[in-house]
Amino acid sequence: MVNLPSWKDKALFTPGPLTTSQTVKQAMLHDMGSRDTEFINIVQDVRRRLVALCASPDEYTTVLMPGSGTFGIEATLSSVIPPDGKLLVLINGAYGARIHKIAEVQRIQNTKLVYTENVQPDPVEMRRALDNDPAITHVAVVHSETTTGILNPIETYGKIAKDHGCIYIVDAMSSFGAYPIDLKECAVDYLISSANKCIEGVPGFSFILARKEALKSIRGYARTLSLDLLAQWEGLEGDGQFRFTPPTHVILAFHQAMLELEQEGGVLGRAERYKQNYEITLAAMQEMGFQPYVEESKRGYSITSFYYPKHPNFNFQKFYKSLSDKGHIIYPGKLTHADCFRIGHIGRLTAMDVRALMAAITETLKEMNITLTEKIEE
Amino acid sequence: MVNLPSWKDKALFTPGPLTTSQTVKQAMLHDMGSRDTEFINIVQDVRRRLVALCASPDEYTTVLMPGSGTFGIEATLSSVIPPDGKLLVLINGAYGARIHKIAEVQRIQNTKLVYTENVQPDPVEMRRALDNDPAITHVAVVHSETTTGILNPIETYGKIAKDHGCIYIVDAMSSFGAYPIDLKECAVDYLISSANKCIEGVPGFSFILARKEALKSIRGYARTLSLDLLAQWEGLEGDGQFRFTPPTHVILAFHQAMLELEQEGGVLGRAERYKQNYEITLAAMQEMGFQPYVEESKRGYSITSFYYPKHPNFNFQKFYKSLSDKGHIIYPGKLTHADCFRIGHIGRLTAMDVRALMAAITETLKEMNITLTEKIEE
Repeated sequence: MVNLPSWKDKALFTPGPLTTSQTVKQAMLHDMGSRDTEFINIVQDVRRRLVALCASPDEYTTVLMPGSGTFGIEATLSSVIPPDGKLLVLINGAYGARIHKIAEVQRIQNTKLVYTENVQPDPVEMRRALDNDPAITHVAVVHSETTTGILNPIETYGKIAKDHGCIYIVDAMSSFGAYPIDLKECAVDYLISSANKCIEGVPGFSFILARKEALKSIRGYARTLSLDLLAQWEGLEGDGQFRFTPPTHVILAFHQAMLELEQEGGVLGRAERYKQNYEITLAAMQEMGFQPYVEESKRGYSITSFYYPKHPNFNFQKFYKSLSDKGHIIYPGKLTHADCFRIGHIGRLTAMDVRALMAAITETLKEMNITLTEKIEE
Repeated sequence: MVNLPSWKDKALFTPGPLTTSQTVKQAMLHDMGSRDTEFINIVQDVRRRLVALCASPDEYTTVLMPGSGTFGIEATLSSVIPPDGKLLVLINGAYGARIHKIAEVQRIQNTKLVYTENVQPDPVEMRRALDNDPAITHVAVVHSETTTGILNPIETYGKIAKDHGCIYIVDAMSSFGAYPIDLKECAVDYLISSANKCIEGVPGFSFILARKEALKSIRGYARTLSLDLLAQWEGLEGDGQFRFTPPTHVILAFHQAMLELEQEGGVLGRAERYKQNYEITLAAMQEMGFQPYVEESKRGYSITSFYYPKHPNFNFQKFYKSLSDKGHIIYPGKLTHADCFRIGHIGRLTAMDVRALMAAITETLKEMNITLTEKIEE
């Protein structure tokens, strides 16, 4: 391996890739033939467990797609929308904007409703948009906008989409596995998430939870070979194999991660830990004088954006580097309207890790000669 | 982990995923932030080393693309061919046919020259095709056709492509790293290979070696966001980051695999081992009475196809299962015209592993009461 200064991994307070358990990584210490029965059985077990987290296997199924989460989003959009379809995208962050960009690149007819990054898309405006444009066949929205950590009410949008007979697509990248989601109650047709988010696997594929009846009706729409959702599903349902070489080791890690999710008490158990990470972070950060960007009622517990403190000595690069040198990786902001940085609460991190980060931030502020007098109360 | 009968991995005599070294897999026991300097430096070192294997860094560069090899092929075709371009595909196997299929799905204007799977595409016919159709702007061919193990003369085709001013695309999936290839001498503009072939990494991304001047001229051609070759390159050249979450662990493994390739004496050193694996296999298989599908002068040393023996007791499923139970995974055939199976020679396999497989085949033939009297001489 390369020369690294110390061989204890830094704690990743990011939206992913995340800190994973040692046992998840150790599951990758095996080479398995991708067309061999042992591997096929693992893939099927992974698929069964994913559906069990959020839906009935009679109505929903799942497709694994190599690549990052964005590959899964593009696979969905480019496979499920017919040539004469039209997509409405609800946007309040970079990931909603990315959905829109994919539609543009794929030359899918589209329209969008855009909101400031700390504001949820307005259901009334969404309903009006669908009322006024009967050409719209599909609606897409991000559940937990990783840009800010704002949580969007996907059940509300789902009901409106269904009232208008639209297919409903949810990007649940940084929420799936950490928030209880009932696909049927939320009227979701397609939900996309990624191996290296709240399931706590390593990066290398995304997965798409799909309503079977919707999935079966998309034949002939795929605009690519690699990202063809229906063909990929038919392969996995048929002989159980991927059409093209899957990331075998990453899938072995994910299988172990699914077992460890169960051991932690499933989605609710994991949510408890993430909420605690969030609460410790928020209390300590506010105590130090940092201010969160999203107001409390809309804030999720996957990741939190904090404003840069208004102090002449604050410099994000220095702040980041000092924390990194102390063994903690935080995440820069991605906002268009405000200077923020982000602290993630997901991955194999516990209260102990969070407290260590908080101590490091306290120390770093001292080193930078920053005292934030203005305490924040919520 | 799941219950596996024994915890020694089976030896993979397949075209990939392959058997890799323990140290390559151990490199994955670390979680690294994908936007952190340490990881960015590893990515740049991987990219530098890939170019160094086959070209001058002044003229060529490389792009890493998440997904399987097919994703890399589709990224290239869908990014480098202009809307009014036309692709000629030389086909003598399933992977050539797949290139053609991608062109069809992507609605890229195309034409093809198709040959039987044990015949190399004819340079004279290729030249005639280009003479007769000046609309052709791009030519694509597979170097080592994994379907059979036949090796195609990429330098010959490259000169003809260049004579006609065509951009030349080579699928070197199961050859790159095991055959010395000089991109400039072969007049290659784009060469695609995969992490889990002859470099002996684990699966999860492909890489595209590209002539810089060609790559810089493709702006606006990309038909997808995820597989946009130019945008991906600009990200890696700019801040050194992937546009979307990379498979960090798989890349750490690949970096270790590149170091181990160097330790083995580079491409020539590795070629020696693979050739030896091939030669031991061939001699023993012929001694047992098996017959290779491709004639010797066209045969590569990455993988060999053997005809099913003409014996009433032979049943491939039983043969495969018996070898698998003994710890060896071979590969089914993929031919349209003949019943064959395949034995791979690549991956972290040595003469010892090959001899163990040969002993297992001898034993399995006995168990199946098969004696192949007709010895093959070449």
